[in-house]
Amino acid sequence: MNDIKVLKFGGSSVKNIGRIEHVADIIASYKPDPVVVVVSAMGDTTDHLLGLAKQCTKNPDQRELDLLLSTGEQVSIVLLSLILKRKGLTAKSLTGQQAGISTTDDHGSARILDIDSELIKKELLENDVIVVAGFQGVTDEGQITTLGRGGSDTTAVALAAALNAKECDIYTDVDGVFTADPNAIKEAVPLKEIPYAQCVTLAKNGAQVIHPRAVELGEQYDVVVRVRNTFNPSNRGTEIKGENEVERRKQFCGVAVDSKQGFISISKSEDSFNLLREITECINECGISVEHIRKSNSIENGAKCATIQICFQYKDEDKVSDAIAALCGKHADLRVCSELDLCKVTLVGCDEFGNAPASVRVIGCLESNGIEVKSVRTGDLAISCLVEKSNAQKAAKLIHEEFDLSNDFDSTTTDELCLIA
Amino acid sequence: MNDIKVLKFGGSSVKNIGRIEHVADIIASYKPDPVVVVVSAMGDTTDHLLGLAKQCTKNPDQRELDLLLSTGEQVSIVLLSLILKRKGLTAKSLTGQQAGISTTDDHGSARILDIDSELIKKELLENDVIVVAGFQGVTDEGQITTLGRGGSDTTAVALAAALNAKECDIYTDVDGVFTADPNAIKEAVPLKEIPYAQCVTLAKNGAQVIHPRAVELGEQYDVVVRVRNTFNPSNRGTEIKGENEVERRKQFCGVAVDSKQGFISISKSEDSFNLLREITECINECGISVEHIRKSNSIENGAKCATIQICFQYKDEDKVSDAIAALCGKHADLRVCSELDLCKVTLVGCDEFGNAPASVRVIGCLESNGIEVKSVRTGDLAISCLVEKSNAQKAAKLIHEEFDLSNDFDSTTTDELCLIA
Repeated sequence: MNDIKVLKFGGSSVKNIGRIEHVADIIASYKPDPVVVVVSAMGDTTDHLLGLAKQCTKNPDQRELDLLLSTGEQVSIVLLSLILKRKGLTAKSLTGQQAGISTTDDHGSARILDIDSELIKKELLENDVIVVAGFQGVTDEGQITTLGRGGSDTTAVALAAALNAKECDIYTDVDGVFTADPNAIKEAVPLKEIPYAQCVTLAKNGAQVIHPRAVELGEQYDVVVRVRNTFNPSNRGTEIKGENEVERRKQFCGVAVDSKQGFISISKSEDSFNLLREITECINECGISVEHIRKSNSIENGAKCATIQICFQYKDEDKVSDAIAALCGKHADLRVCSELDLCKVTLVGCDEFGNAPASVRVIGCLESNGIEVKSVRTGDLAISCLVEKSNAQKAAKLIHEEFDLSNDFDSTTTDELCLIA
Repeated sequence: MNDIKVLKFGGSSVKNIGRIEHVADIIASYKPDPVVVVVSAMGDTTDHLLGLAKQCTKNPDQRELDLLLSTGEQVSIVLLSLILKRKGLTAKSLTGQQAGISTTDDHGSARILDIDSELIKKELLENDVIVVAGFQGVTDEGQITTLGRGGSDTTAVALAAALNAKECDIYTDVDGVFTADPNAIKEAVPLKEIPYAQCVTLAKNGAQVIHPRAVELGEQYDVVVRVRNTFNPSNRGTEIKGENEVERRKQFCGVAVDSKQGFISISKSEDSFNLLREITECINECGISVEHIRKSNSIENGAKCATIQICFQYKDEDKVSDAIAALCGKHADLRVCSELDLCKVTLVGCDEFGNAPASVRVIGCLESNGIEVKSVRTGDLAISCLVEKSNAQKAAKLIHEEFDLSNDFDSTTTDELCLIA
C-alpha cells in the first residue's frame, strides 16, 4: 500500500453541496494513494445546533450537547462519501466512534486517548477513501464526546499520527499560515514554513488558521502539518514542522490579534485578606481565563489599601459584568475599574524575547503612532501588548511594518528572495 | 420501581421547540412512574436529509443513508432531554446504539434482533426519563441502521416488550385509530379499541396512524398499544390489543384508502413461455410490490395469445413507466395497457369476508353510485376494491356510510351508546 494521506476540510470548505463536489475533486487528485479525509460540519451547522439547544435551556448539559453537535459532522461525512462514490471512487464514511477514536469523558473538550488504527487500515483495504467525522470521539462507556472548537484539526493530525502518515494536509480558505490576518492587513503574506512552536504561539494568540492542539500533536508525533487552500489547491501552502527541519530560520514569523481581552482593577480600603480568593472564585464561573494577576498594597489617607489588577480573556461580556456587579453588591467599599474593549496584539518570533530589544521596538512603534499600550507581556516566543480594540488592527499593521514581515524570504508569494538584516 | 411507561412522539409532535415543550409537559404528567420516551426526527427533517443526499447522487448508498438519517432523531432526543432537565426532571438521551438496540444489517429496513434492556434499566435508576432515538439501531459490526419509515413506532413497542411494560402510548396528531381518515371523511370517528389483526390490516391498506410492524410486535409480546393525541392528551385514545381482550367485538372497524395502485395488462401473440418471468424481473427493480398476477391464454385469429394482468402498488410512477417502456422496446409485439392512477379502498372487519355478503354490499354501494370497481380482492379481514384515484375518497365515504361505521358503539366520541344491528 502507498503512503496513507490524511486530509482535513473545514466547515467553509464543505459549506454546501457545490463545495463538497469541489472537495471531492481535490480528494480524487490524491489517487492512487489511500486517503483518509476528516471533515467538519457544513458551514454554520454547529452554531445552528447550539442555537437550538439554547432555545431549550439556558445552560445545556454538556453530555447532551456533544450528542447534538456530533450530528453535524455525521451529515457532512455521508454527503462527501456519496459524492465520492458517484465520482467513481470507493468510499466509506465513519463516525468518530466507528473510526476507533477513544477520548476522555470531558464533554465539550475531550482529549483523544487512543485511536484503534486497525479499523481504518482494514477499511482502506476495500476503499480508496475513508471519510471520518472530525471533532468527535467516544468514551469507554459509549458516550459521544466532542473535542471542542477546532477539534477537527486535532482529529486529522491524531489520525495521521496513528496511521504513521508523514504529512497531514489541513485544507482551509486561505493560502496557508500568514504573517498576519490577510483579511485585515493586506500586506500579510503566507509563510512557506514555520516551526511547530511558533505556529502554536500564533494560534494561541488569535491566529484562526489552525487549532494549536493540532499543531502540538503534530510536533509530538513528528507529523508535518501542511495548511493549504481548498480554493487554490495548486498552492503548496505552509508547512508546519520541527525547528530543525525548517530550511531558513526566521527571526519573526507573524503578528496575531486576539479580541475579548479585558482588564479589571479592584481596590479595597480595609483588610484585604481573602479578597483575591473571593475575586477569583467569583469570576471563575463566567468564562474568564486569567492571563495575569497582580496584587499591591498601599497606604491611602493613613489606611491600608489593597489593589488587585487582572488581565484576562473572556467569552461573554455580560457574564463578566454580572460577576463584577455581584462582587460590588457584596462589598460596598470596593472601587472597581474595568475595561472590556481590549485586544491583545502579539508578535511571534523565534528569539528569546525576554531580554531582546524587540519589545522596545514594538512599544516604540505603537506609542510613536499614538497607540496607548495598556500592558506588555513578553515570553520566550512572543511579545504581547494590550491595546484598545479600535486600535488593534492598526497596531498589528504597524508591528508588521516595523519588522518587515511581508518581505520575508520564507514567503511563498515572493519569487525573488529578499534578505533582510 | 413503579411500572415503566413507554411513550412515543412522532415528527409532528416534536416539529419545533414549542411543541417539544408541550411534549415535555405530557411526559412530566407520568411522574412518578419511570418513563422511556421514543422520539422521531423533528418535522420534515428526514425528508430534508434525503433531499441533501439526492443532491449528492441519484442512488445514495443505503448504508451511508442510514448514517445520515439517524442524525435526525439524535437531534430531537437531545433537545427534548434539555427541556425535560430545565423543567426539573432528571433525563438522559440515548441513541439507538446507546439504548442497546441491535438490528439486522438490512440498511434502510433493518429489523430489531435484540434489545439489551439492562442498559436502560440501569439508566432509569438515576433518571426519571430516558429519551431514546427512534427508527435506528446498530449491527454487531457497529454499523448504524434504520428501521424504515414508521420505524419509531416499532422502536417504542419493542422497547415496551423488552422492558416488560404493559402498555405503550403512541402519541400522534389525531385522537386515535379512526374508522376512516378524519381529514378526508368528516363522519369518521375514533375507535375506543381495536384488535391487533384488524389494526394491522387497516395500517397495511393505507391508514397512516401507526406502523403495522409496531402493532404486530405488540401482538407478539402482549403489549397494549394505545394511540393518542399529543394535542389532546386528556383523551384516552384507541387501545390496540388482543381480540379476546376487546370488550365488544365489532363486525366492521374502518375503511382505509391506499394510493399509488396500478394495473397493467400485457398481451403477446406468440409463444408466451418465459414472458411472466421476464416481466416480473423487469419490474422488480422499480419499487413495485405485486399484489396479484393472473395469466390467461386465448386463441386470437387462430394464433395462441397470452395475457398477463398485474395489480400492484408502486412508489415511483416514472420508474414504472420506464420499466414498461424497456419491456416494449425488447418485444415489439407486446400489447401493453396500464393504469397508474388507481387507489385501493379497503373495508376492514373481523368476519371471514370471503363468503360474506359484505363484498356484495361493498360493490353494490359503489356501482349504484357511479363508481367503477376495477378489481375486488377479499381476504380474511378485508375487502379491497381498486377504483380510480378521483373516486377514492367518495368510495371510502360511501362504504363508511353503508356500514354505518360512525355510529359504532365503540366510538369514544359518542357518549350515548347507539347499538346497531
